Amino acid sequence: MRGRSCIVAAVASELVAIDSNAVVEGRAALPDEKIVELVVQAFAALADMNRAKILYALIRRPLCVRDLAITIGSSESAVSHQLRILRDRRLVKTERKGHLIEYRLDDHHVAALFKEAEFHADHLRRGLPDHSY
Amino acid sequence: MRGRSCIVAAVASELVAIDSNAVVEGRAALPDEKIVELVVQAFAALADMNRAKILYALIRRPLCVRDLAITIGSSESAVSHQLRILRDRRLVKTERKGHLIEYRLDDHHVAALFKEAEFHADHLRRGLPDHSY
Repeated sequence: MRGRSCIVAAVASELVAIDSNAVVEGRAALPDEKIVELVVQAFAALADMNRAKILYALIRRPLCVRDLAITIGSSESAVSHQLRILRDRRLVKTERKGHLIEYRLDDHHVAALFKEAEFHADHLRRGLPDHSY
Repeated sequence: MRGRSCIVAAVASELVAIDSNAVVEGRAALPDEKIVELVVQAFAALADMNRAKILYALIRRPLCVRDLAITIGSSESAVSHQLRILRDRRLVKTERKGHLIEYRLDDHHVAALFKEAEFHADHLRRGLPDHSY
């Protein structure tokens, strides 16, 4: 892969910019490679119907595995499996309530992500033009 | 798949809720299946390093294919391929500027999505606890 990325970088370095100021501005908008990786990993974790439903349900309130399974119409073992993935990516966390383990969103940004994605989806579905805030 | 989802639904319907009010609340947080599908498709489109970099660059300003390729250090053909995917998902749109085709984000929600995902990634990287707004 290293060889391939060298070739790609060489190809890109041979290109002459149409607007070199635009390239400078575009590059300034790119965060560290590590941040892009974490962002992409988070999006990958959200790109699954069952994980998305689990997170939607948890936006409203914390839930235990059993109640999550009933909420999204899945089995407890399937929900446990998805929760492990979401926990690894730090999208959910656990909290002990007496003898129960409850799951909740790990931070407010996860709920905000779904809200924004839903606005986008709603735009698509209704075929709305873009709007400014 | 239909048979499998019937079995899963049967398993879920046999489970007894730990807190039935929690299940009612969790279900109320789930949007239409179609919306969840569109949201998941959007997240899948964002879950790729090159597509993420393209969208980051376009947050700042519109760019043509050549300048995008130089900005993210890729080839024009690779960038064109990713732009087709992003355009199909309505994450970018095109605009003619004289003899040039420029790409821009299709709506403000895409930029907001990255901002939120980046906050989450930054939390992870710095190991910060959750915060309230």
